[in-house]
Amino acid sequence: MNFKENRPWVDGKSDMEKWSIMAAPRAYLDHNAGAPLRETARAAMLAALDAAGNASSVHGEGRAKRAAIDTARGEIAALCGARPDHVVFTSGASEAAATLLSPAYRMGRGPLRMSRLHVLATDHPCILEGGRFAPEDVIRIGVDRSGLADLDALGAALAAHDNEAGLPLVACHLANNETGVIQPVGEITAMVKQAGGFSVVDAVQGAGRLPLDIAALGADFLVLSSHKIGGPQGAGAIVAASDLAMPAPLIRGGGQEKGHRAGTENVAAIAGFGAAAAAARDDLADIAALEALRDRFEAVLTEHFPDAVLIARDTPRLANTMLFAIPGMKAETAQIAFDLAGVALSAGSACSSGKVGDSHVLAAMALGDLGSGLRISIGRETGEAELALFEAACREIAGRRQGRNRAA
Amino acid sequence: MNFKENRPWVDGKSDMEKWSIMAAPRAYLDHNAGAPLRETARAAMLAALDAAGNASSVHGEGRAKRAAIDTARGEIAALCGARPDHVVFTSGASEAAATLLSPAYRMGRGPLRMSRLHVLATDHPCILEGGRFAPEDVIRIGVDRSGLADLDALGAALAAHDNEAGLPLVACHLANNETGVIQPVGEITAMVKQAGGFSVVDAVQGAGRLPLDIAALGADFLVLSSHKIGGPQGAGAIVAASDLAMPAPLIRGGGQEKGHRAGTENVAAIAGFGAAAAAARDDLADIAALEALRDRFEAVLTEHFPDAVLIARDTPRLANTMLFAIPGMKAETAQIAFDLAGVALSAGSACSSGKVGDSHVLAAMALGDLGSGLRISIGRETGEAELALFEAACREIAGRRQGRNRAA
Repeated sequence: MNFKENRPWVDGKSDMEKWSIMAAPRAYLDHNAGAPLRETARAAMLAALDAAGNASSVHGEGRAKRAAIDTARGEIAALCGARPDHVVFTSGASEAAATLLSPAYRMGRGPLRMSRLHVLATDHPCILEGGRFAPEDVIRIGVDRSGLADLDALGAALAAHDNEAGLPLVACHLANNETGVIQPVGEITAMVKQAGGFSVVDAVQGAGRLPLDIAALGADFLVLSSHKIGGPQGAGAIVAASDLAMPAPLIRGGGQEKGHRAGTENVAAIAGFGAAAAAARDDLADIAALEALRDRFEAVLTEHFPDAVLIARDTPRLANTMLFAIPGMKAETAQIAFDLAGVALSAGSACSSGKVGDSHVLAAMALGDLGSGLRISIGRETGEAELALFEAACREIAGRRQGRNRAA
Repeated sequence: MNFKENRPWVDGKSDMEKWSIMAAPRAYLDHNAGAPLRETARAAMLAALDAAGNASSVHGEGRAKRAAIDTARGEIAALCGARPDHVVFTSGASEAAATLLSPAYRMGRGPLRMSRLHVLATDHPCILEGGRFAPEDVIRIGVDRSGLADLDALGAALAAHDNEAGLPLVACHLANNETGVIQPVGEITAMVKQAGGFSVVDAVQGAGRLPLDIAALGADFLVLSSHKIGGPQGAGAIVAASDLAMPAPLIRGGGQEKGHRAGTENVAAIAGFGAAAAAARDDLADIAALEALRDRFEAVLTEHFPDAVLIARDTPRLANTMLFAIPGMKAETAQIAFDLAGVALSAGSACSSGKVGDSHVLAAMALGDLGSGLRISIGRETGEAELALFEAACREIAGRRQGRNRAA
């Protein structure tokens, strides 16, 4: 359980603001938006923070920072069965995606052109926006009602692709951030390979929750995010299956990351990311317990809201995620009610600056009439206390709902 | 003085590596590559790190993170006399430059095209690379032997610009990272305004060392870096004079930073950046003392190396920076000698991943025969202990040099 006390950085905020943060206890059930920082990641960050220096400097201080980056690079590589020198650190997954989703690649010294980008309709917005592709060159592949990629549509799109104009680039997520649905990535990457294209797999929500071997996935590139696996915000990575073909850098300047990404390295965040990746490799051992706990959250929900719609419940999905809708309650209203009751969950995803709009994921699944769902995403820190708080919140909110229904 | 002890993150490194880091005491004289983290910045970071949540989430945890970002936004704005809502956070200065140096801007809802980018030959590589401009559309304006911009050349380039094809975009630094030379930014921005163009001022090395008022500078945009003013690595900012015209975002996806920069905000780094900016506003009060200390470093240098060449000594320059060359000693060799003697200084700048090459700054100043200079850049933490270590190192290195000269 997280007791939200002693938060000096909300000083100066309104009382209402403070109250909603500092009232204890609270249950944080929004791991897919960002997991709490792991203790080992925090320690690695502090060690880096407390030493002066720039990792590109040649002096001892600089070399020590470089060593911390190299250690982290090894941990990221080990998390996904890749080679350390095929890991490029970025400021996060959105930057990694913006870098990879480019028409301009280089293979050795020669240019390599990607003429079209194929994305899944339920991809994260940083994929859907298409990076450096012109909007007309971004093709959306649909999903079925269970949230799975329409492989026939992808096959048709690849068959129709004109390889003379450039290769097809295909981006898809391993697991969906809202529903938790796990895509058939191996099948997708095999189709892409067959078509002579390159594949980018957004593994942000899969890391630490699913086996993550770049060769087994058949992906040319993976995108990872530190803060989704208990590392700090501010670090992400591109992991490449090889360094034969790489995208034109998005940020140019100093020669950091072998020229693939300029800018002074965020050593503390990278060190924390590495430590989190090392720990995340062990998370899979506890995944069955996490799933059992998630199922208990679902049981509590359906006990108090027998008419709740559990989305993608019968589709292969992440062990930690559940998405639901309560008929007659708008998701944003329900979220605020849960928040006031001490439970932090999400209405849709947290990537739109506090704006809660209709979910593009549900719309793509032909569930657009639901607007957006309520998402619970749990993690290592979640336990009985959180479940009890959730149960109390459900009882309170369901009670008010019954009262309203009786009055109506 | 920094005692480099107890650095768990160098464990596993070679003994040589450890030795060079952990031998105490050391003098860190490389503030222009990165200043040590301020205590207030560290505290702000830790507060943010220890709270779960994503600043885009609507629940209490998310709102508290949002509040921390807003506080930092206000501090950055106050540092440069701008409005908080004209501050866009990025992962660092290189990303800020890559975003601003774009042919594609928007003014309101309409497109605004910049057809050419003019840069100073002594700009930082992240400016010289030209961001999203094609190489043929990037024009380099030279500097004179004292390192100051050739205003006649800029005037001629702007006069020759075809405004029908698009506006001229001009980027220049406020102060040079290697020499410390302060450019006549007010004159440059006035010329740009007269020509109907837009100006980007790289204020990374000026912040905390020079008055920094965006209106007084006449700049349309400033670029700032957190870790150069004692904040953490991993944060930077674009500060705009207004929000009338803004560049097409470099990283798209979630709607963070009003759509100008997608990706989960690095709240800890941003909070630390804000705290550092608040502290940096007071640094100017001590700037005369810093300059007097720097001059004592110069006096020590010339005592032991009477033939040392002090570069740009007679040009207006930063109070904390000195760049020099020792005849007959290659900069990289001298740097290693100083490093072994416990003094961290820089050969050129630290933006090339540990590679020490010839300095483009010296080449532009027609001092290319020097290769690259040795840079000492001091800061708040520098004091008598560092000066004494530098003096001891100079004595030792100068002694060996005299021995060699006698033997030869």
